[in-house]
Amino acid sequence: MRVFGIDCGTEITGFGVVESDESGSLPRVVCKTAGAIRLAKSKPLADRLSDLYRRLSTELAVWHPEVVAIEEVFYSVNAKSALKLGQVRGVALLAAAERKLPVAEYAPLSIKSSVVGYGLAQKEQVQFMVARLLDLPELPEPADAADALAIAICHLHTAQTLLTQEVRR
Amino acid sequence: MRVFGIDCGTEITGFGVVESDESGSLPRVVCKTAGAIRLAKSKPLADRLSDLYRRLSTELAVWHPEVVAIEEVFYSVNAKSALKLGQVRGVALLAAAERKLPVAEYAPLSIKSSVVGYGLAQKEQVQFMVARLLDLPELPEPADAADALAIAICHLHTAQTLLTQEVRR
Repeated sequence: MRVFGIDCGTEITGFGVVESDESGSLPRVVCKTAGAIRLAKSKPLADRLSDLYRRLSTELAVWHPEVVAIEEVFYSVNAKSALKLGQVRGVALLAAAERKLPVAEYAPLSIKSSVVGYGLAQKEQVQFMVARLLDLPELPEPADAADALAIAICHLHTAQTLLTQEVRR
Repeated sequence: MRVFGIDCGTEITGFGVVESDESGSLPRVVCKTAGAIRLAKSKPLADRLSDLYRRLSTELAVWHPEVVAIEEVFYSVNAKSALKLGQVRGVALLAAAERKLPVAEYAPLSIKSSVVGYGLAQKEQVQFMVARLLDLPELPEPADAADALAIAICHLHTAQTLLTQEVRR
Protein backbone atom coordinates (compact mmCIF):
# COMPACT_ATOMS: atom_id res chain seq x y z
CA MET A 1 0.00 0.00 0.00
CA ARG A 2 1.29 3.45 -0.92
CA VAL A 3 0.30 6.41 1.25
CA PHE A 4 0.69 10.12 0.56
CA GLY A 5 1.00 12.13 3.77
CA ILE A 6 0.35 15.87 3.89
CA ASP A 7 1.29 18.18 6.75
CA CYS A 8 -0.59 21.42 6.07
CA GLY A 9 0.94 24.69 7.17
CA THR A 10 0.24 28.34 6.44
CA GLU A 11 3.78 28.94 5.19
CA ILE A 12 5.19 25.48 4.52
CA THR A 13 3.25 22.33 3.63
CA GLY A 14 5.17 19.08 3.94
CA PHE A 15 4.47 15.95 1.91
CA GLY A 16 5.85 12.45 1.94
CA VAL A 17 5.14 9.10 0.31
CA VAL A 18 5.67 5.78 2.07
CA GLU A 19 4.99 2.23 0.95
CA SER A 20 4.76 -1.06 2.80
CA ASP A 21 7.18 -3.63 1.47
CA GLU A 22 6.21 -7.23 2.30
CA SER A 23 8.81 -8.88 0.04
CA GLY A 24 11.46 -9.55 2.74
CA SER A 25 11.26 -11.79 5.81
CA LEU A 26 10.10 -8.81 7.87
CA PRO A 27 7.59 -6.27 6.55
CA ARG A 28 9.18 -2.82 6.22
CA VAL A 29 8.08 0.67 5.35
CA VAL A 30 9.93 2.38 2.53
CA CYS A 31 10.14 6.12 1.82
CA LYS A 32 9.52 6.96 -1.85
CA THR A 33 9.81 10.74 -1.59
CA ALA A 34 9.46 13.64 0.83
CA GLY A 35 9.56 17.38 0.47
CA ALA A 36 8.05 20.69 1.41
CA ILE A 37 6.16 23.32 -0.52
CA ARG A 38 7.03 26.84 0.60
CA LEU A 39 4.49 29.49 -0.35
CA ALA A 40 5.81 32.82 -1.61
CA LYS A 41 4.71 35.50 0.86
CA SER A 42 4.97 38.15 -1.83
CA LYS A 43 2.13 36.69 -3.92
CA PRO A 44 -1.60 37.28 -3.34
CA LEU A 45 -3.24 34.55 -1.24
CA ALA A 46 -5.28 33.12 -4.13
CA ASP A 47 -2.11 32.70 -6.24
CA ARG A 48 -0.30 31.04 -3.33
CA LEU A 49 -3.16 28.56 -2.95
CA SER A 50 -3.06 27.96 -6.69
CA ASP A 51 0.71 27.21 -6.52
CA LEU A 52 0.11 24.78 -3.65
CA TYR A 53 -2.73 23.06 -5.51
CA ARG A 54 -0.56 22.57 -8.60
CA ARG A 55 2.43 21.26 -6.66
CA LEU A 56 0.32 18.80 -4.68
CA SER A 57 -1.58 17.68 -7.78
CA THR A 58 1.70 17.08 -9.59
CA GLU A 59 3.16 15.03 -6.73
CA LEU A 60 -0.06 12.99 -6.49
CA ALA A 61 0.07 12.34 -10.25
CA VAL A 62 3.73 11.30 -10.12
CA TRP A 63 3.42 8.97 -7.11
CA HIS A 64 -0.17 7.71 -7.61
CA PRO A 65 -0.81 6.70 -4.00
CA GLU A 66 -3.85 4.66 -2.96
CA VAL A 67 -4.76 6.98 -0.12
CA VAL A 68 -3.99 10.42 1.26
CA ALA A 69 -3.37 10.85 5.00
CA ILE A 70 -3.70 14.24 6.65
CA GLU A 71 -3.53 15.62 10.17
CA GLU A 72 -6.80 16.25 11.95
CA VAL A 73 -7.29 19.80 12.95
CA PHE A 74 -5.66 21.13 16.00
CA TYR A 75 -8.23 23.42 17.62
CA SER A 76 -6.10 25.13 20.23
CA VAL A 77 -4.83 27.69 17.73
CA ASN A 78 -6.63 31.02 17.53
CA ALA A 79 -9.37 31.79 15.01
CA LYS A 80 -7.11 33.86 12.73
CA SER A 81 -4.51 31.08 12.43
CA ALA A 82 -7.25 28.46 12.09
CA LEU A 83 -8.77 30.28 9.15
CA LYS A 84 -5.41 30.59 7.39
CA LEU A 85 -4.64 26.92 8.00
CA GLY A 86 -8.16 26.01 6.85
CA GLN A 87 -7.57 27.70 3.50
CA VAL A 88 -4.47 25.57 2.91
CA ARG A 89 -6.19 22.43 4.18
CA GLY A 90 -9.21 22.98 1.92
CA VAL A 91 -6.94 23.13 -1.12
CA ALA A 92 -5.02 20.00 -0.02
CA LEU A 93 -8.27 18.06 0.46
CA LEU A 94 -9.47 19.26 -2.93
CA ALA A 95 -6.28 18.02 -4.61
CA ALA A 96 -6.96 14.54 -3.16
CA ALA A 97 -10.66 14.59 -4.07
CA GLU A 98 -9.96 15.71 -7.64
CA ARG A 99 -7.86 12.55 -8.06
CA LYS A 100 -10.63 10.44 -6.46
CA LEU A 101 -8.34 9.46 -3.59
CA PRO A 102 -9.78 8.55 -0.20
CA VAL A 103 -8.60 10.77 2.64
CA ALA A 104 -7.77 9.46 6.13
CA GLU A 105 -7.42 11.90 9.04
CA TYR A 106 -5.37 11.35 12.18
CA ALA A 107 -5.12 13.36 15.38
CA PRO A 108 -1.66 14.77 16.19
CA LEU A 109 -1.52 12.56 19.29
CA SER A 110 -2.16 9.39 17.26
CA ILE A 111 0.49 10.36 14.71
CA LYS A 112 3.18 10.98 17.31
CA SER A 113 2.21 7.87 19.29
CA SER A 114 2.39 5.81 16.13
CA VAL A 115 5.89 6.98 15.26
CA VAL A 116 7.58 7.88 18.55
CA GLY A 117 5.39 5.88 20.93
CA TYR A 118 4.64 9.07 22.83
CA GLY A 119 1.83 11.50 21.93
CA LEU A 120 3.56 14.63 23.15
CA ALA A 121 6.86 14.04 21.34
CA GLN A 122 8.92 17.02 20.12
CA LYS A 123 9.47 17.78 16.43
CA GLU A 124 13.09 16.56 16.65
CA GLN A 125 12.00 13.21 18.10
CA VAL A 126 9.54 12.77 15.22
CA GLN A 127 12.30 13.55 12.68
CA PHE A 128 14.66 11.11 14.37
CA MET A 129 12.15 8.24 14.58
CA VAL A 130 10.88 8.80 11.01
CA ALA A 131 14.49 8.54 9.78
CA ARG A 132 14.96 5.32 11.78
CA LEU A 133 11.69 3.67 10.76
CA LEU A 134 12.32 4.44 7.10
CA ASP A 135 16.05 3.63 7.31
CA LEU A 136 16.99 7.05 5.92
CA PRO A 137 20.68 8.04 5.80
CA GLU A 138 19.86 11.43 7.39
CA LEU A 139 17.04 13.30 9.12
CA PRO A 140 14.26 14.37 6.74
CA GLU A 141 14.34 18.15 6.33
CA PRO A 142 12.49 20.42 6.84
CA ALA A 143 10.57 19.16 9.88
CA ASP A 144 7.36 19.57 7.84
CA ALA A 145 8.50 16.81 5.47
CA ALA A 146 9.21 14.54 8.47
CA ASP A 147 5.74 15.32 9.84
CA ALA A 148 4.14 14.39 6.52
CA LEU A 149 6.04 11.09 6.51
CA ALA A 150 4.92 10.48 10.11
CA ILE A 151 1.27 10.99 9.08
CA ALA A 152 1.71 8.51 6.21
CA ILE A 153 3.42 5.98 8.52
CA CYS A 154 0.57 6.39 11.02
CA HIS A 155 -1.90 5.43 8.31
CA LEU A 156 0.15 2.38 7.30
CA HIS A 157 0.41 1.22 10.91
CA THR A 158 -3.30 1.73 11.46
CA ALA A 159 -4.19 -0.02 8.21
CA GLN A 160 -1.90 -2.95 9.09
CA THR A 161 -3.37 -3.20 12.58
CA LEU A 162 -6.86 -3.28 11.11
CA LEU A 163 -5.78 -5.93 8.61
CA THR A 164 -4.23 -8.10 11.34
CA GLN A 165 -7.41 -7.83 13.36
CA GLU A 166 -9.42 -8.77 10.28
CA VAL A 167 -7.25 -11.87 9.68
CA ARG A 168 -7.48 -12.96 13.31
CA ARG A 169 -11.25 -12.67 13.45
CA MET B 1 -17.54 45.99 -15.27
CA ARG B 2 -18.83 42.56 -14.27
CA VAL B 3 -18.19 41.37 -10.71
CA PHE B 4 -18.64 37.89 -9.25
CA GLY B 5 -19.38 38.02 -5.52
CA ILE B 6 -18.89 35.02 -3.24
CA ASP B 7 -20.25 34.67 0.28
CA CYS B 8 -18.41 31.68 1.77
CA GLY B 9 -20.19 29.53 4.32
CA THR B 10 -19.52 26.13 5.84
CA GLU B 11 -22.91 24.80 4.74
CA ILE B 12 -24.12 27.24 2.08
CA THR B 13 -21.97 29.41 -0.17
CA GLY B 14 -23.78 32.21 -1.98
CA PHE B 15 -22.74 33.70 -5.29
CA GLY B 16 -23.99 36.58 -7.40
CA VAL B 17 -22.98 38.45 -10.53
CA VAL B 18 -23.59 42.17 -11.01
CA GLU B 19 -22.66 44.50 -13.85
CA SER B 20 -22.53 48.26 -14.15
CA ASP B 21 -24.69 49.57 -16.97
CA GLU B 22 -23.71 53.03 -18.20
CA SER B 23 -25.96 53.04 -21.27
CA GLY B 24 -28.87 55.02 -19.77
CA SER B 25 -28.97 58.58 -18.47
CA LEU B 26 -28.13 57.32 -14.97
CA PRO B 27 -25.59 54.57 -14.32
CA ARG B 28 -27.26 51.48 -12.86
CA VAL B 29 -26.18 48.15 -11.47
CA VAL B 30 -27.75 45.07 -13.04
CA CYS B 31 -28.01 41.58 -11.55
CA LYS B 32 -27.00 38.85 -14.01
CA THR B 33 -27.45 35.85 -11.72
CA ALA B 34 -27.49 34.82 -8.08
CA GLY B 35 -27.68 31.53 -6.27
CA ALA B 36 -26.41 29.37 -3.47
CA ILE B 37 -24.40 26.16 -3.36
CA ARG B 38 -25.51 23.86 -0.56
CA LEU B 39 -22.98 21.23 0.43
CA ALA B 40 -24.27 17.71 1.12
CA LYS B 41 -23.55 16.92 4.77
CA SER B 42 -23.60 13.20 4.02
CA LYS B 43 -20.48 13.34 1.82
CA PRO B 44 -16.87 13.32 3.06
CA LEU B 45 -15.39 16.81 3.44
CA ALA B 46 -12.99 16.44 0.50
CA ASP B 47 -15.86 15.50 -1.83
CA ARG B 48 -17.94 18.43 -0.59
CA LEU B 49 -15.06 20.79 -1.34
CA SER B 50 -14.70 19.20 -4.76
CA ASP B 51 -18.43 19.78 -5.47
CA LEU B 52 -18.08 23.41 -4.42
CA TYR B 53 -14.99 23.90 -6.58
CA ARG B 54 -16.77 22.49 -9.63
CA ARG B 55 -19.92 24.57 -9.13
CA LEU B 56 -17.96 27.80 -8.63
CA SER B 57 -15.67 27.05 -11.58
CA THR B 58 -18.70 26.41 -13.78
CA GLU B 59 -20.40 29.66 -12.75
CA LEU B 60 -17.17 31.59 -13.32
CA ALA B 61 -16.84 30.02 -16.77
CA VAL B 62 -20.46 30.83 -17.68
CA TRP B 63 -20.43 34.45 -16.48
CA HIS B 64 -16.76 35.33 -17.17
CA PRO B 65 -16.50 38.21 -14.72
CA GLU B 66 -13.53 40.60 -14.66
CA VAL B 67 -13.04 40.30 -10.92
CA VAL B 68 -14.08 38.19 -7.95
CA ALA B 69 -15.14 39.92 -4.71
CA ILE B 70 -15.14 38.05 -1.43
CA GLU B 71 -15.76 38.89 2.20
CA GLU B 72 -12.76 39.48 4.40
CA VAL B 73 -12.52 37.12 7.26
CA PHE B 74 -14.55 37.67 10.34
CA TYR B 75 -12.26 36.81 13.22
CA SER B 76 -14.75 36.77 16.08
CA VAL B 77 -15.80 33.19 15.33
CA ASN B 78 -14.11 30.38 17.26
CA ALA B 79 -11.12 28.44 15.93
CA LYS B 80 -13.16 25.37 14.95
CA SER B 81 -15.61 27.40 12.84
CA ALA B 82 -12.77 29.48 11.42
CA LEU B 83 -10.96 26.37 10.20
CA LYS B 84 -14.12 25.01 8.54
CA LEU B 85 -14.82 28.36 6.90
CA GLY B 86 -11.16 28.59 5.86
CA GLN B 87 -11.40 25.28 3.99
CA VAL B 88 -14.34 26.60 1.95
CA ARG B 89 -12.66 29.98 1.43
CA GLY B 90 -9.43 28.35 0.23
CA VAL B 91 -11.33 26.46 -2.44
CA ALA B 92 -13.26 29.59 -3.52
CA LEU B 93 -10.02 31.59 -3.83
CA LEU B 94 -8.45 28.73 -5.79
CA ALA B 95 -11.40 28.70 -8.24
CA ALA B 96 -10.76 32.42 -8.91
CA ALA B 97 -6.99 32.00 -9.20
CA GLU B 98 -7.31 29.04 -11.59
CA ARG B 99 -9.23 31.35 -13.94
CA LYS B 100 -6.59 34.10 -13.49
CA LEU B 101 -9.17 36.43 -11.95
CA PRO B 102 -8.09 39.14 -9.52
CA VAL B 103 -9.68 38.86 -6.08
CA ALA B 104 -10.85 41.86 -4.05
CA GLU B 105 -11.63 41.47 -0.36
CA TYR B 106 -14.02 43.61 1.67
CA ALA B 107 -14.71 43.74 5.38
CA PRO B 108 -18.30 42.90 6.45
CA LEU B 109 -18.71 46.48 7.73
CA SER B 110 -17.71 47.96 4.36
CA ILE B 111 -20.08 45.64 2.51
CA LYS B 112 -23.08 46.49 4.67
CA SER B 113 -22.23 50.20 4.66
CA SER B 114 -21.96 50.16 0.89
CA VAL B 115 -25.39 48.55 0.42
CA VAL B 116 -27.49 49.61 3.43
CA GLY B 117 -25.51 52.68 4.51
CA TYR B 118 -25.10 51.13 7.95
CA GLY B 119 -22.30 48.73 8.89
CA LEU B 120 -24.26 46.75 11.45
CA ALA B 121 -27.31 46.10 9.26
CA GLN B 122 -29.32 42.88 9.68
CA LYS B 123 -29.47 40.16 7.02
CA GLU B 124 -33.05 41.16 6.10
CA GLN B 125 -32.01 44.78 5.54
CA VAL B 126 -29.22 43.61 3.22
CA GLN B 127 -31.69 41.45 1.26
CA PHE B 128 -34.14 44.34 1.00
CA MET B 129 -31.56 46.91 -0.15
CA VAL B 130 -29.91 44.50 -2.60
CA ALA B 131 -33.34 43.89 -4.19
CA ARG B 132 -33.93 47.66 -4.40
CA LEU B 133 -30.50 48.57 -5.77
CA LEU B 134 -30.73 45.86 -8.43
CA ASP B 135 -34.43 46.52 -9.14
CA LEU B 136 -35.33 42.88 -8.47
CA PRO B 137 -39.01 41.86 -8.43
CA GLU B 138 -38.51 39.97 -5.14
CA LEU B 139 -35.97 39.51 -2.36
CA PRO B 140 -32.96 37.38 -3.37
CA GLU B 141 -33.14 34.01 -1.59
CA PRO B 142 -31.45 32.48 0.30
CA ALA B 143 -29.84 35.31 2.31
CA ASP B 144 -26.42 33.92 1.23
CA ALA B 145 -27.19 34.83 -2.39
CA ALA B 146 -28.17 38.36 -1.28
CA ASP B 147 -24.91 38.62 0.69
CA ALA B 148 -22.90 37.58 -2.36
CA LEU B 149 -24.68 40.24 -4.45
CA ALA B 150 -23.95 42.79 -1.71
CA ILE B 151 -20.23 41.93 -1.84
CA ALA B 152 -20.25 42.36 -5.63
CA ILE B 153 -22.12 45.68 -5.37
CA CYS B 154 -19.60 46.84 -2.75
CA HIS B 155 -16.80 46.21 -5.22
CA LEU B 156 -18.60 48.09 -8.00
CA HIS B 157 -19.25 51.08 -5.72
CA THR B 158 -15.64 51.07 -4.55
CA ALA B 159 -14.31 50.74 -8.09
CA GLN B 160 -16.57 53.57 -9.28
CA THR B 161 -15.51 55.79 -6.39
CA LEU B 162 -11.86 55.15 -7.21
CA LEU B 163 -12.54 55.93 -10.88
CA THR B 164 -14.32 59.19 -10.04
CA GLN B 165 -11.43 60.23 -7.84
CA GLU B 166 -9.04 59.37 -10.65
CA VAL B 167 -10.99 61.53 -13.14
CA ARG B 168 -11.15 64.45 -10.73
CA ARG B 169 -7.44 64.45 -10.04
